[in-house]
Amino acid sequence: MGRALRIPGASVHWYDKPEMRKQRKMGHITLVGPSMGIIEARLKSMLSEETEDDQPPAAPRVGIIMGSDSDLPVMKDAATILREFNVPAEVRIVSAHRTPEMMFSYASSARERGIQVIIAGAGGAAHLPGMVAALTPLPVIGVPVRASTLDGLDSLLSIVQMPRGVPVATVAINNATNAGLLAVRLLGISDINLQARMAQYQEDRRDEVLVKDDKLGKHGWEYYLNS
Amino acid sequence: MGRALRIPGASVHWYDKPEMRKQRKMGHITLVGPSMGIIEARLKSMLSEETEDDQPPAAPRVGIIMGSDSDLPVMKDAATILREFNVPAEVRIVSAHRTPEMMFSYASSARERGIQVIIAGAGGAAHLPGMVAALTPLPVIGVPVRASTLDGLDSLLSIVQMPRGVPVATVAINNATNAGLLAVRLLGISDINLQARMAQYQEDRRDEVLVKDDKLGKHGWEYYLNS
Amino acid sequence: MGRALRIPGASVHWYDKPEMRKQRKMGHITLVGPSMGIIEARLKSMLSEETEDDQPPAAPRVGIIMGSDSDLPVMKDAATILREFNVPAEVRIVSAHRTPEMMFSYASSARERGIQVIIAGAGGAAHLPGMVAALTPLPVIGVPVRASTLDGLDSLLSIVQMPRGVPVATVAINNATNAGLLAVRLLGISDINLQARMAQYQEDRRDEVLVKDDKLGKHGWEYYLNS
Amino acid sequence: MGRALRIPGASVHWYDKPEMRKQRKMGHITLVGPSMGIIEARLKSMLSEETEDDQPPAAPRVGIIMGSDSDLPVMKDAATILREFNVPAEVRIVSAHRTPEMMFSYASSARERGIQVIIAGAGGAAHLPGMVAALTPLPVIGVPVRASTLDGLDSLLSIVQMPRGVPVATVAINNATNAGLLAVRLLGISDINLQARMAQYQEDRRDEVLVKDDKLGKHGWEYYLNS
Amino acid sequence: MGRALRIPGASVHWYDKPEMRKQRKMGHITLVGPSMGIIEARLKSMLSEETEDDQPPAAPRVGIIMGSDSDLPVMKDAATILREFNVPAEVRIVSAHRTPEMMFSYASSARERGIQVIIAGAGGAAHLPGMVAALTPLPVIGVPVRASTLDGLDSLLSIVQMPRGVPVATVAINNATNAGLLAVRLLGISDINLQARMAQYQEDRRDEVLVKDDKLGKHGWEYYLNS
Amino acid sequence: MGRALRIPGASVHWYDKPEMRKQRKMGHITLVGPSMGIIEARLKSMLSEETEDDQPPAAPRVGIIMGSDSDLPVMKDAATILREFNVPAEVRIVSAHRTPEMMFSYASSARERGIQVIIAGAGGAAHLPGMVAALTPLPVIGVPVRASTLDGLDSLLSIVQMPRGVPVATVAINNATNAGLLAVRLLGISDINLQARMAQYQEDRRDEVLVKDDKLGKHGWEYYLNS
Amino acid sequence: MGRALRIPGASVHWYDKPEMRKQRKMGHITLVGPSMGIIEARLKSMLSEETEDDQPPAAPRVGIIMGSDSDLPVMKDAATILREFNVPAEVRIVSAHRTPEMMFSYASSARERGIQVIIAGAGGAAHLPGMVAALTPLPVIGVPVRASTLDGLDSLLSIVQMPRGVPVATVAINNATNAGLLAVRLLGISDINLQARMAQYQEDRRDEVLVKDDKLGKHGWEYYLNS
Amino acid sequence: MGRALRIPGASVHWYDKPEMRKQRKMGHITLVGPSMGIIEARLKSMLSEETEDDQPPAAPRVGIIMGSDSDLPVMKDAATILREFNVPAEVRIVSAHRTPEMMFSYASSARERGIQVIIAGAGGAAHLPGMVAALTPLPVIGVPVRASTLDGLDSLLSIVQMPRGVPVATVAINNATNAGLLAVRLLGISDINLQARMAQYQEDRRDEVLVKDDKLGKHGWEYYLNS
Repeated sequence: MGRALRIPGASVHWYDKPEMRKQRKMGHITLVGPSMGIIEARLKSMLSEETEDDQPPAAPRVGIIMGSDSDLPVMKDAATILREFNVPAEVRIVSAHRTPEMMFSYASSARERGIQVIIAGAGGAAHLPGMVAALTPLPVIGVPVRASTLDGLDSLLSIVQMPRGVPVATVAINNATNAGLLAVRLLGISDINLQARMAQYQEDRRDEVLVKDDKLGKHGWEYYLNS
Repeated sequence: MGRALRIPGASVHWYDKPEMRKQRKMGHITLVGPSMGIIEARLKSMLSEETEDDQPPAAPRVGIIMGSDSDLPVMKDAATILREFNVPAEVRIVSAHRTPEMMFSYASSARERGIQVIIAGAGGAAHLPGMVAALTPLPVIGVPVRASTLDGLDSLLSIVQMPRGVPVATVAINNATNAGLLAVRLLGISDINLQARMAQYQEDRRDEVLVKDDKLGKHGWEYYLNS
Repeated sequence: MGRALRIPGASVHWYDKPEMRKQRKMGHITLVGPSMGIIEARLKSMLSEETEDDQPPAAPRVGIIMGSDSDLPVMKDAATILREFNVPAEVRIVSAHRTPEMMFSYASSARERGIQVIIAGAGGAAHLPGMVAALTPLPVIGVPVRASTLDGLDSLLSIVQMPRGVPVATVAINNATNAGLLAVRLLGISDINLQARMAQYQEDRRDEVLVKDDKLGKHGWEYYLNS
Repeated sequence: MGRALRIPGASVHWYDKPEMRKQRKMGHITLVGPSMGIIEARLKSMLSEETEDDQPPAAPRVGIIMGSDSDLPVMKDAATILREFNVPAEVRIVSAHRTPEMMFSYASSARERGIQVIIAGAGGAAHLPGMVAALTPLPVIGVPVRASTLDGLDSLLSIVQMPRGVPVATVAINNATNAGLLAVRLLGISDINLQARMAQYQEDRRDEVLVKDDKLGKHGWEYYLNS
Repeated sequence: MGRALRIPGASVHWYDKPEMRKQRKMGHITLVGPSMGIIEARLKSMLSEETEDDQPPAAPRVGIIMGSDSDLPVMKDAATILREFNVPAEVRIVSAHRTPEMMFSYASSARERGIQVIIAGAGGAAHLPGMVAALTPLPVIGVPVRASTLDGLDSLLSIVQMPRGVPVATVAINNATNAGLLAVRLLGISDINLQARMAQYQEDRRDEVLVKDDKLGKHGWEYYLNS
Repeated sequence: MGRALRIPGASVHWYDKPEMRKQRKMGHITLVGPSMGIIEARLKSMLSEETEDDQPPAAPRVGIIMGSDSDLPVMKDAATILREFNVPAEVRIVSAHRTPEMMFSYASSARERGIQVIIAGAGGAAHLPGMVAALTPLPVIGVPVRASTLDGLDSLLSIVQMPRGVPVATVAINNATNAGLLAVRLLGISDINLQARMAQYQEDRRDEVLVKDDKLGKHGWEYYLNS
Repeated sequence: MGRALRIPGASVHWYDKPEMRKQRKMGHITLVGPSMGIIEARLKSMLSEETEDDQPPAAPRVGIIMGSDSDLPVMKDAATILREFNVPAEVRIVSAHRTPEMMFSYASSARERGIQVIIAGAGGAAHLPGMVAALTPLPVIGVPVRASTLDGLDSLLSIVQMPRGVPVATVAINNATNAGLLAVRLLGISDINLQARMAQYQEDRRDEVLVKDDKLGKHGWEYYLNS
Repeated sequence: MGRALRIPGASVHWYDKPEMRKQRKMGHITLVGPSMGIIEARLKSMLSEETEDDQPPAAPRVGIIMGSDSDLPVMKDAATILREFNVPAEVRIVSAHRTPEMMFSYASSARERGIQVIIAGAGGAAHLPGMVAALTPLPVIGVPVRASTLDGLDSLLSIVQMPRGVPVATVAINNATNAGLLAVRLLGISDINLQARMAQYQEDRRDEVLVKDDKLGKHGWEYYLNS
């Protein structure tokens, strides 16, 4: 089903909700599309993926989702960090407002697909992180993406000010790097190796500063600014 | 099904989404609950409603929903206005974050249940109005409810700053009265009688001001303030 | 009279207000202008429109007004949406502060001219939407236009924070697209065809996201960002 | 006509606008009301005022208007200041949103009624000061009244952020005292006596501070706080 | 003395304050400067002005002051408006923080120099308008100038939120045009000619909108945007 | 050493930083205090704890720290949630500004003391969560506590706007309940039992809403509000 | 002259400004007042102070000034801190807007009166700290006092956002305690004893926290909250 | 040790904290680095500095520190001012979040290294100034640096809103010039020469304005703007 979820227009049937936890019987896959041609193309893509799938990549532990591909230039920083830490992740466009069913399906099934942490970024009235957090017991990290007005304040408040009962772990506006690092810290709770690498990462950042401070101290700030 | 939706724990099966528009085959009703006793009580309540239902009230044209019963002291003003205009309305607690499935079900089925306008109120990271608007082609009116911090600014931005594609008709913070009046204006587009009553309502408000201004002019402001 | 309203300097006589609803006797048309030449040009334009008018376009159902032609690059998005949905609309410059009489006349007569929804956009101390809403029982949609300072916050608060009695259906800052879509939803209350097309519009947006997500899933985000 | 304007439901006929400046022919007075009884009461009130009017008070030079009688506890401070300076003023409730016609009439006729300065207070989406300024060449002083949310920020921005062409002289939130003092300064431009009294007022305020500072210096701050 | 005030480093002696109002004996002029050369240049400039001064320009009625020459691109709009209305005005750089003595002197002497209205613009912690208002009984118009951060909000609040006793007539951020127009309205209180011209100005603005609306109505918005 | 950390004035020696990761040789415990008497009392307390400690409570997995005991009425909600989920937690007062050394020590040693998640709450310029996150690779959850001014906005921005490299998982202002729930979700990544209980918790919240909605539907909102 | 400055209405003659630094010839003292009686009372008070003054208190090193006695409940905290550190201080009411001459005189003469640091508190459009800083080369500490609206944001921005050239050392809203502590740190630069006491003060604050944390650790948070 | 602190990776041993004040025995220097090569390079650099150090520059009285070298273009203005006043200063990169140990060491040892004032600049959740102030009794000046979102408001609040006990002398956003000037005023408390130069600096700024005002007065604003 994880694979089917990657095909646009293919969706799980949702009658397994909310009694899903009792029966666990998954439905069948349906393909929809704006035209027959697109549906066929999708089916083909689905089948070819099936066959290509012989050496599957590592199953993703982190799901990075965003409301629009216009958020990708910001959200890619989370993917970069996770790759740096060798944490397998998937990157998806899942819109709370334009694809609510897919969001519902994605969030509800993430846990059983093996996802351990979800990073969700959105701008403006940013509902994606909070809605996903409402649909899963997994930890959800929210990235407020700055939209064209109000400098990200609307995104920040829409994500962080969640009511009692449903937390979203919010990071700074546009700071998907920190979302990736937070995911590593979360996974590090039970992964001593990852935790050690995070400690090393912090030391490396420290050393970078030390080297810069050293250069600044030796040459003075005029030289530093001009070099 | 409308009736079943009123029973907590009773929910429609959701596999009819997104292909619902083609097949229109509705599922069956399932009852869930935290304990067997509660489920039985619900079943009883459902059956008794069935029998009581002989003289049904007018089918609601407006759905007033809110994320928590703590929003009711604010949101009741919308119900009061609609009653004043004889517009049948239902009042429901539907939480985007605590009952996402019910929200999904409520929003998706509202149109076919005869609802014409949805008024949704919420506070803090207020996702209910926007999520409902994403799940229905009906107009959705959003009421930002002031929560305990930030004086309603978070609610306002979370509701009004919707991305392109999914509008929410937002009114002022805590102003459910205006949400009710806006619903009347919306229904008045095709209901000449309602539109005339709205015009009358505006004249009545004018006359109230005129009477106050008259009193103020005759007696002076000291008298007015002390009376 | 609708035609006369299009001629600058031509205006209805306002003594029919507020007793207009009783007598319905409309006044005569007066032409004013900064110079005699302009007045003559306007008269000519008015007459030529009379004769040209043989195949009149569909009467507008939505009035899109704005306080200044500098708002047009934002507000045109509402017109584009309405054209996409085949909803006839008129686009006008009506300034609350520079042409208060025309605003008064426009708003007061909109209902009898067949307008069903008014979309009003303005920036800074944005009074146009609220004042128009005070002068008509029609629903008024307000678009806060970002002016040169404060990033649209002043426009938003000036439009959305209306007092009890006179609602404005406010959308996001600069989001005239959503104003157009909201107008379609409003008209869809009594127009089953329009409502169905709105549902289709939502599905199309969904499919666009699905196609993008598909591409992202197949090729990865580096490829996606560079293509 | 000034007197008629004080009777609720009595209004001038507005065809004298915009060509008013040419013909100057004023219309007749019409009385409207929600019921015949109220209309009769108003007529009586109007006639009795005519006869009572033998020793008329000084014609008001300043008009203090507000959108609602709930603004009176704030706005009365302007009236108090003007009385202290012996500047005749009238206090009126004129709502931009509930009595737009009366606002229009009030603002358009203020100049010829002898009003020289208008002080307008309103809360929330505060349109009254700006709309009045659009309808008169008189100076208009705006008082942002703090409404129940956002601490007056919405009122302030709705009043002060007027577009090029129509200024409103804005004072601090809830500071109707300063609106009164500003009106005195404005009238003092051509009234040497009033200007001198304003200078004296400033000296008196200075002396009050000096006396307090003297007491504080002599007795120390503990004593001062406890006395 | 007015002339002397124009020479940098030349300043009135301030012992005439606060007892100035009794004795009216003005002091003598002192010239200071960072070096002897500059002082000599200033003396020369002062003398040459004396002789050139045979045909003096009209005495300024409005003083336009600003805290820095970096405010001039904004503040020049006030000067432009006043010239358009033939109101003589002077433009000065007077900094509350860098030239507090000159500010003190300028504000205290403005009234007796014949200034009737002061327009003061400043950015950031904008103290100039409020301090000048504290030192004169003349009306002071404040223009919040947007500085490099916070988008003018700091300037606005620093100018408008004056305490009880000392009002500043604040206009919109960066809107020196409105400051000029407000000055004209103030002077129009006692200048029927100026008031009439303001009324005409408002009509001209109206006609400009009407002409634009006419063009928009005839050609449609696509044509309008492209022309 | 965990025990020693509980004694005020007792602190680990910090030369093991930054080379700690190589040598792991821990220092000795030093007791300091404002007076000899207090030091003795502390030593006694330390020894008595040693002896009392026979049946130690479960080692804490979550550290709940706050900058002041005035934050405790807010922060106790996190402790309540963790107790509800049977997650052992410790509650400490650790001030970034008043006890920087203890903060340093606490944060640096948390990991080796077995702490897996840190919840840190603070108000105003809230530096505690960010500083602790800088000193540990563990995930840190930040709770902005509303202080006496600015309604929590300062706390929120001081906590959430962390620079690249050091994330803090921020929850809503004053919402320590969500901090506790987020900690449970974090621990649930590797604790299937805890994750299941979180899922159950979400269902229970859902059922609470359903019961309330049921009551509201049966009895109507007037009854509901009055009961 | 320091003494004369304490008498209301007594003021130095200001011709010594700006050429004061060259000639240093101080003027004479003038007494003014609203009435002859008050002037006599002040003279008496001045003379009696002269005679009482035999054992003068220590000359103040810090001047604590505020714009209104309504600021005293906040500003007294600075006086309390300075007394605790045995730093002699004077407490004065000096209003930038109501007593601009006294402010001018106070600020200009502070340095030669032996004042080393000025603490200035004000609310709303808070100009006092910045104006004083413009008139002296001494360090000025600004305390934003929360006024009745906007929660102190206006005061904060009016004080902290000073333009290049004139700094004000701003502390948190209403935090006069920190203003006092900052003054001690400033004086401690050249007063090793004061600096040591500040270090001791910080240790004492630390110990207070340690004692509270100890109590919390021993008894648990329920006990702590209830005791 | 001051010299060692300049070498990246070289750090003092911290067991001298908090009992440092009793024993004053300083530890030894340890060199760490990400690789052996870097460590060797650092050692070389350290030794070469030792030998080069024959004519040491003046010991710095002011420490200018910042969280990142991206703050240097803003913070260099403080260094420029201090050089102008011949106050020896050091410029360092010290990050609260990436080099907490170095920050701790820097702040704790600043006083004994002869630093008298610390200027600290940071952006976003700007913790550096407050943390440094917590670790030293020296006065700390905070410069809020505008980061990529929120226009510096987050930095400002994170720096200025310090809790009771630990003040930071905050200047305007990005205004490192004023931080430098404030440092000079602080040092001027006990340095009569520096204080006199500050007074001269203020006079020079005044004269610059006077010269500009002179030019503006002579040539008019059109000429001024175009030259």
